[in-house]
Amino acid sequence: MTLYNDLLTQLADKLGPNGLLTAPDAIAPYCRDWRGLFQGQALAVLRPASTQELSDALALCASYPTPPNIVPQGGNTGLCGGATPNAEGANIVVSLSRMRAIGPLDTTDNTLAVEAGATLQAAQEAAAAEGMVLPLSIASEGSAQIGGIVATNAGGSKALRYGSARELVAGIEAVCIDGAKLDLMRSLRKDNTGYALRQLLVGSEGTLAIVTKALLRVQPAPNVREVAFCALPDDTAVLHLFRIAQQRASGNLEAFEYISGTAMNVATTYVEGLSLPFVESAPAYVLLELAGQDAALRETLEAILEQALEEECVIDAVLAENQSQAQALWRLREEQSEAQRLAGASIKHDISVPVPDVPELLARATRECTALMPDVRVAPFGHIGDGNIHLNIVQPATMPADVFLKEGKALTEAIHAAVKALDGSFSAEHGVGQLKTDLMETWRGGKELELMRRIKAAFDPEGRLNPGKVLP
Amino acid sequence: MTLYNDLLTQLADKLGPNGLLTAPDAIAPYCRDWRGLFQGQALAVLRPASTQELSDALALCASYPTPPNIVPQGGNTGLCGGATPNAEGANIVVSLSRMRAIGPLDTTDNTLAVEAGATLQAAQEAAAAEGMVLPLSIASEGSAQIGGIVATNAGGSKALRYGSARELVAGIEAVCIDGAKLDLMRSLRKDNTGYALRQLLVGSEGTLAIVTKALLRVQPAPNVREVAFCALPDDTAVLHLFRIAQQRASGNLEAFEYISGTAMNVATTYVEGLSLPFVESAPAYVLLELAGQDAALRETLEAILEQALEEECVIDAVLAENQSQAQALWRLREEQSEAQRLAGASIKHDISVPVPDVPELLARATRECTALMPDVRVAPFGHIGDGNIHLNIVQPATMPADVFLKEGKALTEAIHAAVKALDGSFSAEHGVGQLKTDLMETWRGGKELELMRRIKAAFDPEGRLNPGKVLP
Repeated sequence: MTLYNDLLTQLADKLGPNGLLTAPDAIAPYCRDWRGLFQGQALAVLRPASTQELSDALALCASYPTPPNIVPQGGNTGLCGGATPNAEGANIVVSLSRMRAIGPLDTTDNTLAVEAGATLQAAQEAAAAEGMVLPLSIASEGSAQIGGIVATNAGGSKALRYGSARELVAGIEAVCIDGAKLDLMRSLRKDNTGYALRQLLVGSEGTLAIVTKALLRVQPAPNVREVAFCALPDDTAVLHLFRIAQQRASGNLEAFEYISGTAMNVATTYVEGLSLPFVESAPAYVLLELAGQDAALRETLEAILEQALEEECVIDAVLAENQSQAQALWRLREEQSEAQRLAGASIKHDISVPVPDVPELLARATRECTALMPDVRVAPFGHIGDGNIHLNIVQPATMPADVFLKEGKALTEAIHAAVKALDGSFSAEHGVGQLKTDLMETWRGGKELELMRRIKAAFDPEGRLNPGKVLP
Repeated sequence: MTLYNDLLTQLADKLGPNGLLTAPDAIAPYCRDWRGLFQGQALAVLRPASTQELSDALALCASYPTPPNIVPQGGNTGLCGGATPNAEGANIVVSLSRMRAIGPLDTTDNTLAVEAGATLQAAQEAAAAEGMVLPLSIASEGSAQIGGIVATNAGGSKALRYGSARELVAGIEAVCIDGAKLDLMRSLRKDNTGYALRQLLVGSEGTLAIVTKALLRVQPAPNVREVAFCALPDDTAVLHLFRIAQQRASGNLEAFEYISGTAMNVATTYVEGLSLPFVESAPAYVLLELAGQDAALRETLEAILEQALEEECVIDAVLAENQSQAQALWRLREEQSEAQRLAGASIKHDISVPVPDVPELLARATRECTALMPDVRVAPFGHIGDGNIHLNIVQPATMPADVFLKEGKALTEAIHAAVKALDGSFSAEHGVGQLKTDLMETWRGGKELELMRRIKAAFDPEGRLNPGKVLP
């Protein structure tokens, strides 16, 4: 790669010693994803201190006779290899971790400006410091950076009420592959002047432009919370309860978390000290949380449960009387992942279907998986209100993990077929990256994929920006 | 245009006598906008009965040796000529008014499927019939069709709480210029599988594809409403009150309507029987409405006003004690347009700025307009919470209307300069159409416009779909 020595020297001159990493040891962590599924290579890691530096550096790269590929990387917390360079080609990774300024927070506009390299958690804390909330939360928020959050349209557990990253992005600043800056930071609630470039960048996984800054919507933090935990007769009743809650909670429905009977059995079996607040176990459970400002939510929650008991979609329910009871109820939901880890190997599916079709999906997945593998534990749970159930399959207690994982491919195929039949998505939250590009042709093929390819070419004619990601 | 006789004959064969209009009298209404600002021409009007018919017809057109332009038109209620064919060239207008099926309404998913030719009002009524609300309302809703609503990202008075059309579109079906169908109707709250084509179509004003169907988000209709009308000391206090209302109303803030002192003076002077509920007039007024389900909103509204009086951002306030009082208070807002019509000629500006900058915009506009034209009445009002103020300028009482309209161009220029300095938009709601393409270069120029042009070419390489609209 001596071909690029000149370019690297010029980049180092421009960005200074902190701005360009070339030592193999320094580069290595940027060349593999955190789970170790993907291993790529890079000539260097570019660490600009400002949008202008990134712009200048990309313009310089573009002017080089054989311009390198550019691979943006945030907190390297992705699950599909979308931020890992490929194993061939001349790649320069761009890390924005030096650009992590947060603010100002505008309490009239309800927006918070955040540079791409700040972590989601740092942005959440900046909002909280002023009594506001940035209502986006994902497991990796301590490391995940805002640039990646925007580029992958991160979802998480609050999407039911507040939407995914897309709904929270009021503005974006980005740099194109040729170095041109795109200032889409206008914080306008109404603006009909041309195509929705900002929307297009959200979820494009760094293949159209590199997000350098975002303006995020924040809200006054709720000061009233009410939590209930319900036992339900079946999965259809879950949707019935969901309708009642939506009808009565009037926008204050903060969480509606589903736990299947199987998942709860796994949890109470494997997690020490975890027990049901009911005498008998049930086929399904729901944790309900209402949150708001100065609102009489206790009455609302009681009215929801009263109607649900009357209409027989709830068998039994408990309301938290205080903060510690609320935490205890939440623990029944939060220990699910840990419980499944303790139970052995599991296969997870980042799928979504239209909300009304969730019971049908669960029934079909359970039926088909147990037909393929008797004693397997189909143990779904999650935020049912957004159709993005964690359809996790836990190994049979008696089967070796490696056998399960190998034979489990057929289970995944059966689940994907069920999701596709319901017009769902094979990637609700995690994106396509390089892990799932092979599914795009079948799931999003034809004209849709043709237009995506043309849009890619419109932004990146030479295909140098994050090549091999999203599009097959 | 005998060149196209063959094509028209084939289209008539395919679509039947109802499917193609060619008589000049029948075509004429489709060739001019409803305000009579634009006059174009067309070979025919295509009126498909189904998406498949439109697809077949466009494929046939595309296969013709010299393919015609295609101009989609909804209810012809636009204000920028975006649906009017140009005066040269071989244009075929596409009207979807035969495709107006509505339903099903899904009360679990909270969505309503609507064909493009249905009016917004018909869709609202279908939702209301099942106790739901489609929270999008514009003045022309009795004629405006869903296809146009989606294609122009219609806004209206409920955008503060519910967003514009963009936020309410859960799915789109469309047909491309080559006849290919795009099925983006998947009703998934979470789906990260490639670029946001659906988002791109919203607001593209029929230049990228023709919307044939949409899946719209509906909500349970609120059953509690509380209304207050407030007098305020100045425009800065309006934002102060807005912050308090947002903080306390917790998502139940349904309307926050501003009326300037000047606008209110015009209204009480010209509209018979309209009078203030206060002894003295004030520099600014706000109408507040909270709405929700079974919520104690009276207490919330009282708490908002109590805090506002204490913090001196409200001078005086009245709360509606019943439905008829609420209507009387709303009339003070709703008669504003009529009042300005009675007061003579007025110049309207469809602008928006970031919400915190509204007072600065109003101050600057008032100062500069009165400097240019003493006695002019700068009489703004509107939904201040989305930054889209109706910045209307009413003629001086003593000046002839035609002189005012001619000399008023300088006022518009001053207002646009102020909006641009605040990083606002020259078209908050009405779009670009053919009326405002000349502003795109200055306001959205450089890389932004370049990318828009490339996106246009990605969807419509020959530039035959609604030519001359949006892009200069």
